[in-house]
Amino acid sequence: MTQPTPKKPLRIGLIGAGFMGRAHANAYRRAPNFFDLPYEPVLKAICARSEGTAAAFARQWGFESAETDWRRMIERDDIDVIDICTPNDSHRDIAIAAAEAGKMVLCEKPLARTAAEGAEMVAAVEKAGVANMVWYNYRRVPAVTLAKQLIDSGRLGRIYHYRAQFLQDWTISSELPQGGAGLWRLDAAAAGSGVTGDLLAHCIDTALWLNGSVKKVTAMTETFVKERMHQITGKVEPVKIDDACAFLARFENGSLGTFESTRYARGHKALYTFEINGEKASIKWDLHDLHRLGYFDHGDDSLTRGWRSVHVTDHDMPYMDKWWVPGLQIGYEHSFVHQFADFLIGLGSGESAAPTFRDAQETQEVCEAVLASGADGQWHDVEGL
Amino acid sequence: MTQPTPKKPLRIGLIGAGFMGRAHANAYRRAPNFFDLPYEPVLKAICARSEGTAAAFARQWGFESAETDWRRMIERDDIDVIDICTPNDSHRDIAIAAAEAGKMVLCEKPLARTAAEGAEMVAAVEKAGVANMVWYNYRRVPAVTLAKQLIDSGRLGRIYHYRAQFLQDWTISSELPQGGAGLWRLDAAAAGSGVTGDLLAHCIDTALWLNGSVKKVTAMTETFVKERMHQITGKVEPVKIDDACAFLARFENGSLGTFESTRYARGHKALYTFEINGEKASIKWDLHDLHRLGYFDHGDDSLTRGWRSVHVTDHDMPYMDKWWVPGLQIGYEHSFVHQFADFLIGLGSGESAAPTFRDAQETQEVCEAVLASGADGQWHDVEGL
Amino acid sequence: MTQPTPKKPLRIGLIGAGFMGRAHANAYRRAPNFFDLPYEPVLKAICARSEGTAAAFARQWGFESAETDWRRMIERDDIDVIDICTPNDSHRDIAIAAAEAGKMVLCEKPLARTAAEGAEMVAAVEKAGVANMVWYNYRRVPAVTLAKQLIDSGRLGRIYHYRAQFLQDWTISSELPQGGAGLWRLDAAAAGSGVTGDLLAHCIDTALWLNGSVKKVTAMTETFVKERMHQITGKVEPVKIDDACAFLARFENGSLGTFESTRYARGHKALYTFEINGEKASIKWDLHDLHRLGYFDHGDDSLTRGWRSVHVTDHDMPYMDKWWVPGLQIGYEHSFVHQFADFLIGLGSGESAAPTFRDAQETQEVCEAVLASGADGQWHDVEGL
Amino acid sequence: MTQPTPKKPLRIGLIGAGFMGRAHANAYRRAPNFFDLPYEPVLKAICARSEGTAAAFARQWGFESAETDWRRMIERDDIDVIDICTPNDSHRDIAIAAAEAGKMVLCEKPLARTAAEGAEMVAAVEKAGVANMVWYNYRRVPAVTLAKQLIDSGRLGRIYHYRAQFLQDWTISSELPQGGAGLWRLDAAAAGSGVTGDLLAHCIDTALWLNGSVKKVTAMTETFVKERMHQITGKVEPVKIDDACAFLARFENGSLGTFESTRYARGHKALYTFEINGEKASIKWDLHDLHRLGYFDHGDDSLTRGWRSVHVTDHDMPYMDKWWVPGLQIGYEHSFVHQFADFLIGLGSGESAAPTFRDAQETQEVCEAVLASGADGQWHDVEGL
Repeated sequence: MTQPTPKKPLRIGLIGAGFMGRAHANAYRRAPNFFDLPYEPVLKAICARSEGTAAAFARQWGFESAETDWRRMIERDDIDVIDICTPNDSHRDIAIAAAEAGKMVLCEKPLARTAAEGAEMVAAVEKAGVANMVWYNYRRVPAVTLAKQLIDSGRLGRIYHYRAQFLQDWTISSELPQGGAGLWRLDAAAAGSGVTGDLLAHCIDTALWLNGSVKKVTAMTETFVKERMHQITGKVEPVKIDDACAFLARFENGSLGTFESTRYARGHKALYTFEINGEKASIKWDLHDLHRLGYFDHGDDSLTRGWRSVHVTDHDMPYMDKWWVPGLQIGYEHSFVHQFADFLIGLGSGESAAPTFRDAQETQEVCEAVLASGADGQWHDVEGL
Repeated sequence: MTQPTPKKPLRIGLIGAGFMGRAHANAYRRAPNFFDLPYEPVLKAICARSEGTAAAFARQWGFESAETDWRRMIERDDIDVIDICTPNDSHRDIAIAAAEAGKMVLCEKPLARTAAEGAEMVAAVEKAGVANMVWYNYRRVPAVTLAKQLIDSGRLGRIYHYRAQFLQDWTISSELPQGGAGLWRLDAAAAGSGVTGDLLAHCIDTALWLNGSVKKVTAMTETFVKERMHQITGKVEPVKIDDACAFLARFENGSLGTFESTRYARGHKALYTFEINGEKASIKWDLHDLHRLGYFDHGDDSLTRGWRSVHVTDHDMPYMDKWWVPGLQIGYEHSFVHQFADFLIGLGSGESAAPTFRDAQETQEVCEAVLASGADGQWHDVEGL
Repeated sequence: MTQPTPKKPLRIGLIGAGFMGRAHANAYRRAPNFFDLPYEPVLKAICARSEGTAAAFARQWGFESAETDWRRMIERDDIDVIDICTPNDSHRDIAIAAAEAGKMVLCEKPLARTAAEGAEMVAAVEKAGVANMVWYNYRRVPAVTLAKQLIDSGRLGRIYHYRAQFLQDWTISSELPQGGAGLWRLDAAAAGSGVTGDLLAHCIDTALWLNGSVKKVTAMTETFVKERMHQITGKVEPVKIDDACAFLARFENGSLGTFESTRYARGHKALYTFEINGEKASIKWDLHDLHRLGYFDHGDDSLTRGWRSVHVTDHDMPYMDKWWVPGLQIGYEHSFVHQFADFLIGLGSGESAAPTFRDAQETQEVCEAVLASGADGQWHDVEGL
Repeated sequence: MTQPTPKKPLRIGLIGAGFMGRAHANAYRRAPNFFDLPYEPVLKAICARSEGTAAAFARQWGFESAETDWRRMIERDDIDVIDICTPNDSHRDIAIAAAEAGKMVLCEKPLARTAAEGAEMVAAVEKAGVANMVWYNYRRVPAVTLAKQLIDSGRLGRIYHYRAQFLQDWTISSELPQGGAGLWRLDAAAAGSGVTGDLLAHCIDTALWLNGSVKKVTAMTETFVKERMHQITGKVEPVKIDDACAFLARFENGSLGTFESTRYARGHKALYTFEINGEKASIKWDLHDLHRLGYFDHGDDSLTRGWRSVHVTDHDMPYMDKWWVPGLQIGYEHSFVHQFADFLIGLGSGESAAPTFRDAQETQEVCEAVLASGADGQWHDVEGL
């Protein structure tokens, strides 16, 4: 049989072997099966602090080698792209080192713990001129991409309202410790913030993408459990993250935003929802049924007008021609596959896939304003880049 | 203030003071508040077997008098219309006597225990030339009336499928007795049949109205609890009704029907549902959220096509201009108010409101074929009238 | 037949013949049919500015007489209770005059345009010692009353979050005029405020009832359509109401509140929703399916834990033993019937039905703080009574 | 790093490169990433009639070689297992040849066109003593597996009703041709039957698994579009498949079954639903939201009893510990991954994963009875194996 020209390899070094490391590794592996891509991902190396973890992950996912020191991995010249899946406190150092070494840099969200860190990272990748992207994966859930298409096509008309929530309930127990493996998200030193950087960052990224820039915000934050045992120090220590955060926003386009996130909403595991109300139509979506998009079109005749539940599985839906047949849904992990495929397609065409570090820095700036407002109760303008 | 011409009184004699008696009395009382009607209902007399019941009901609902013998009530010349809300075994006798006395006759569904009884009743009211109607109330739930309008306007195109269910769970306990007050529906002598006459009769009436005549059926019936204490005899007696019944049907229009009813569907109280699939559009409805209509229009553009949940409360919806404002739902009892209003409007215009006894007899014929098939396992043609 | 002791009459004078007038009149008429009450409502007089309107309303609802001047109606000594269903700008004057005349006073919500007006009204009824109540009807939707019972029984445990919305879309068109019949809600002089007094007042009343007092708030308000033709002056005039308002709140019990209301949420007619997240369980409800309550119980075994959709129709549910049978839903108007029945029952027992004017004044104080914050962007404490 | 003992390779030869070929290939590739398995799948060869198709599929999915003649592939001694994803008319010949060659045999559903063919296949694999399995994948959707666990644990008690539907709408257009690539499902010669073998077979497999054997059935079948252009012959030819089929059933356990399938239900793409009503609890599920299970427990206290929507994503749910975190859903394709993982685990432990050919033959027997009843209108007993 005739062989087509082999594809260019893209040699990946993944840092971090946790939940997100798995999601990214799966994306590298799945994308070539379902997409026609200009690059062939090569799983060159996985880096984890523990040798055993790294080795096991390498076997499970087919990485060629395992490392335990990320600085060493960045030094390797057989790696083209560094993908950062570590806790937030190491994003800046790894990203800057990788950029300085001329590697492309992918970074799990949020970009950084603070806007200041993020700004350094943006500067580093832009100075190095390396491809870069942040894994705000929800943009590539087909129903969310469809929402973007509907908005861009003008179907909604002038936008009046944007509202989003990200509700979880996994930290209600005061027995849950903070810090260390699996729980660094409760440790402000590691995470930077609580739900703001972890969950609202997702809501904000989507909002900026779908509805444009945020001008100013006022916020309310709360830490319900004031002290938790710290897994690393072994001591009961104050909890310094925000357990819950809600904020009001004014967008550049004149619409009003309401955002809320918490890890104390009993009954919700990962209920990311958004709704957009326009003059002519409205859209809503939620992560617990991510394959559906709610759509209301005021242009429908009045006798049959109602919220439509669009089952986003037909082949003309974003990304869905790559998967199965109408009616058969995909899941969470596919958003990473789509983002990675888009990254490779972007590399091939020279147009980088969004969100870049610069795009993601805008989310950092909103988070910064939100946390500042949570602290002083004032409205805060969102700083420009 | 100038008084408009007073309306013609319509003097009502209601027989039966149970659940249905209340629903009808409420309809007489509310219709004039919400509709502009050519007649003024006058609650002349209530008849119940027990004097105390009749008196209490009269006070509660404002009837002018109370009777304990329906034959005596029919003899009264100050009554224009007899409304029958008794168990099924007395429908025939009362209806025929009332017709012969020249009264208009309203009858709670099912028309009769058997098609033979029903035929006598049709003959009686038609011979007497009196107005008559059967209370298949679900036709007048606004969402159901809307379904009829959408079908009649051709929106669905050729119909392929009609399916209906009526699921309840109230007779699962074998401790529940049969017969007597509140439980005559479990006694074949009083009810004629079980779920077929009680619940499937509703499904069939709606189906005939929305989708036309049924040609033939094949059915499966079951009695899960074989014996129950009989409240009247005080003895454990065989249960002779159908606890559950499902049937397949072929409609005259070439579509296929599937119907099912049971009182053993744990978790459902009064879950009457129907769905109609046409070439161009589909419709679905259920009684547990009766103010909504599901509608799918294949003509919608493919990116936003989906089942619509129409909240049937706007003023251009059937009957809804009479009630509140958009977004505010009405309930079960309103279907009776609508039907009674339509009856009075029909009287005024000389066009009788459906379903008449003759219309309802078609449902009896389908029930008869269903029960016959349940007994012998064969397909049965539905007899003409 | 033996007549029981006749009930005491309660002679009602209703002021206002609009949408709310009908809802109240219906409540007077329906309550005695479905509830066993210590008083017999007598529909003594309806007052509307137009003689024709008053006369027609009297005929439709069976009032004995019609008035066109509310002061004259208050002077009548054959009236026990004055029920105020006029636009907000006349609530104070009518209520105070009625109280001074020794009448019981019922008032449609919001109590007043401002907290200052409300305070005068509270003082007047308390000084006169007359029974008084404000028609925050949603407390008596059975599912909402059930929510109250569940919370009071301790099922939710410590409360973390309370969120509510009231979303409508009826004023999006800039062609819609303001002021005058049917549109006084858009006229700040008549209404006092926009969505805050009209819609958020409902959300706040329920929240105070279910979750206790609010300590402080920060708000964002917006008027999307800046000018509208005024129906009374005939001129294009500035719109001075809030078209949309969102606010963040801190409750006395330590929980966080988020509230939002708008008349620019395309696709929603009267979507009042609330959700409460407690340590052990959560509850949610919405007005578009008012007969259902969402309930999540963390105590359920993990394999079958999930949000329950409780169909609030069984006879052990609040108020539902008065209506039909399990599975058959009631609607919007029934909340008024329940509130009126509770008022009469309260009169009989000497315990006044909530919310009284004093209760409703707490909602006024929250609204006042919200509007102040919307104006200056600061957090505002809610003033005590 | 220390290498663990390498896993035993399992060398796979896949026949068929269509939709199902992709679903199976994906299962081989993903299972080792997410499960700890005793065998390492080796994608040895793909067989497709067209050389180009086979080569492209091999590249896309990483098969080592490509074949165009399935007989040749079976002859290869470097292949352990033959997986059949061809149209139904070749299942028998391939399976028997593979079994006779001593290969393990996996077969896409339905097992065969007819019960007679199926019986030969069962005999062949059992005579050869080779591992065998049929890809009734829906058993391994976590929510469906959970349903099985709940039933087996006795939570439902005595079962009264089982109902299932599989509704599609893709063949409504009479312009759609029959036969050949992508459309062999409309050609009775290739498919054996229409919706009965294609869709009801799924419903029946699940039903037999969850609810035990079916004793007898009565069915109604219909072919709405009588003639279609045949893609292979190029002529308009009669359509000989069943476009729609509904049947009533009696199970061995005394419960009643209703089943329906069609490709003419406008608005439904792949709406496989089932509901089971037991004395103590009920369960429902549908493929359009496959990550949820509906559950109603009559044992819940009456004030909060309602249908629960269980979001089947927590780590204690079947298979879900292998995937992401609570709240994040998986999709259709995962059911194949699970089944393949179970097959390998079964091989390792010597216990073969269900459904085997013998298990799947019971579904063939039900289909046979259904089609016979569709033809003659009589109740048919289901033949034993």
